[in-house]
Formats: sequence, C-alpha cells, structure tokens
Amino acid sequence: MIRLHGYWAAGAPYRIRIALNLKGLEWESVSHDLRHGEQKSPEYLTLNPQGLVPALEADGQVITQSLAIMEWLDETYPEPPLLPGDKDARAKVRTMAAVIACDIHPLNNLRVLNAIRGDFNADEDQVLTWTGRWITQGFDALEAMLGQYGGAWAYGDMPGMADCCIIPQVFSARRFKVDLAPYPRIVALAERAASHPAFAAAAPEKQEKPA
Amino acid sequence: MIRLHGYWAAGAPYRIRIALNLKGLEWESVSHDLRHGEQKSPEYLTLNPQGLVPALEADGQVITQSLAIMEWLDETYPEPPLLPGDKDARAKVRTMAAVIACDIHPLNNLRVLNAIRGDFNADEDQVLTWTGRWITQGFDALEAMLGQYGGAWAYGDMPGMADCCIIPQVFSARRFKVDLAPYPRIVALAERAASHPAFAAAAPEKQEKPA
Repeated sequence: MIRLHGYWAAGAPYRIRIALNLKGLEWESVSHDLRHGEQKSPEYLTLNPQGLVPALEADGQVITQSLAIMEWLDETYPEPPLLPGDKDARAKVRTMAAVIACDIHPLNNLRVLNAIRGDFNADEDQVLTWTGRWITQGFDALEAMLGQYGGAWAYGDMPGMADCCIIPQVFSARRFKVDLAPYPRIVALAERAASHPAFAAAAPEKQEKPA
Repeated sequence: MIRLHGYWAAGAPYRIRIALNLKGLEWESVSHDLRHGEQKSPEYLTLNPQGLVPALEADGQVITQSLAIMEWLDETYPEPPLLPGDKDARAKVRTMAAVIACDIHPLNNLRVLNAIRGDFNADEDQVLTWTGRWITQGFDALEAMLGQYGGAWAYGDMPGMADCCIIPQVFSARRFKVDLAPYPRIVALAERAASHPAFAAAAPEKQEKPA
C-alpha cells in the first residue's frame, strides 16, 4: 500500500494527494502535526532527513520533495499521465509547476512565517503583506502562462502536474486573503477542480485533522 | 544558437551554464543586470513573464525555471544524461536538486533579501542569519543524502542535475559566510567540480560582468 506522509493543511502534500487520485491509486495517509513539530521526530527523520512533508513510501522506495514524487509517480504509473507526451509541452507544464513550487510556496510555508515572526517580530498584517507579495508576483506570471497554454486545465484538456500545484496554491492564497479578482483563469481552474473527484477528495477540508 | 539569459552572480542561471557545458553544447550568454532591474524590462518580460533569470532560447522554444530547463535539455540532448537511467535513481537526483531549488535558493535570492530589508529593516547581520538558516537546514539534509547516494558525484559516478544545483549553492553559501566544516561531502563535491571543465567554465568569476 502506498503511504503518503503529510498534514491536512500543508500545500505540498496536497499536490501529491491530487496526483495519487488522478492516477486512481489506492493510498493511505500518515499525518504529522506540523504545529507540534511532529515532522522533526527521529522516526520521521529516518524517512526524510529534511523533516518536511510530504514523503511517499511506495514500491520499497521513500521519495521526498513533491516535484520529484510527481515525476516518479508519472514514471512508475504512467496512466493517466501528469505530463504531456511532447517534450516542449512537458517543459511548459514543468515551468508552471515550478513557478508555484520554487517561487511562491517555499516563501510562505510555516517554517518561513515562523522565521519572519521570530527574527523580525512580524505582526499578522506584515505576514499577509509578505505572503501576498509572493503569491501575486507568481500568479501574475501564471495567469499570463494560462492564457498562452491553458485549455480546460493548465495545459490543454487533461489535468496534470501544473494543476496539482496550482490548486493547492489557490487554497493557500484564499487563506492568506489574496484578492483573486485579477486572476480569472486561475479562479476558473479552481472552480473546475472543485467539481473533479480527484481534486475534491484531496481538498484539505476532506482530510483527517489531528485533535 | 542557444541563448541563456542570466546574470553572472545569480544561482539559478549558473545551474544552466553547468548543464549546457556538461552536454557539450554551444551557447551564448545574455546578461541582465539584476542590480538595475533589467530582468523587468518590457522586452525581457515577453520572454519570461516572471521577470526572473534564467530563460533559455533554443530550438524555437523559450523555457524558464531552471528545473524545467534542465529536464528539457536532458530530453532534447540526451547525451550525456543529467539523470540516471533507472526511475528510482532519477527520483533521488530530482529530490536532491529540489532541496536546493525549492527549499534553499528561493529564500535567499535578491528579491527576498530586498524584501526583508524593506519590510523589516533587516541589517546585514540579520540577512546572514536568514540566509545561513536555510542553507544549513538544507545542507544538513543534503549531506545525509550524499552519504546514502553519492559516489564521485552527488549520485554515483557521473555529474548530473543534482550537481548542477549543489555547486552554485556552495558558491552562494560561501558568499553568505556559512561555515562549511560540517559538510565534508558537499565540500569534496565542490572541490571535484572546481577541476572539471564544465563546472569551471560556468563559475561566476568566469562570466562577463556588467560595468
């Protein structure tokens, strides 16, 4: 059985929940309560020395880093694909995924917000200015990219790796009170995802929450 | 002719310089002076709506985001490969690349350091505390991973995508005065790279610097 180590509200494991569901794979969830630092337990560190979620246990492998996990899932369980067949098209999808996974999300996760609170006494208004800046800069570019490449989904008419990254980032943007009015294509994508079973079942509010 | 848009001191274009050199490709450099915001020029934004470096122009494509560029290069010019042949091994290399490209570098680039200076009046000691934290957290994990997977290079005995990310991050770590003594495997890798022509030619000090 595939085991996904994650946390209901964390953005990167949410990507993998969507990917697993799109592939139609059966998997079980192992929750690590980030609020209490459970991802730093000695036991979990043997699986992932970074002490971050997600980690995927499958086929005797332990894989960490959400982009690496999605690539591995696509190579191990090819149907339906998370990446298009053409290499130039694959590059566009990987670019959109990386806009989120490299240039938005890493700046806004819990360890970073704790750092600006701890190092600089950032108050909650300053936290929202911080998170909002990176989300809007990334979404400005992504909205343009969706105009170039998007169809029913982020690239063409099948959901894939970019959608796995964008939908969790929309959840995060709403949590951080970002105005999404300038991003009609991103909002339309989120609406489509809300009624797709693979995305709907992966949503944070559908996951088990620790007490 | 392949054109790489970058900047001599920036970490992400440095990855691509190494990758292009490892592939033995001919390419030309287009420099955008990040200190003067040249990467935000209207002309460059038509190539990369994110206004970040690198962007690669090749074969009629424009590709942005360094991880996507390296994957595309590996699919377009397969020899010598940047990723091992086995899918489980590929996942390990992609994980190590992502530790750098998602969890260290995005927190320490110029736009983020400008943000902590601007939002929180961070002084240079606080900047070094900030950059050092993310580098040491990432390098702690990476040093353990090199112990598991490393050979002469980050994975086995051929340089690849992980090395393309690690070597520029070592340059950055030294610039930010991080003590590398706890990371003998990372330091050994950097020493090996210094005497490898593909890495040596890609080094920041070998690039043309704007006036």
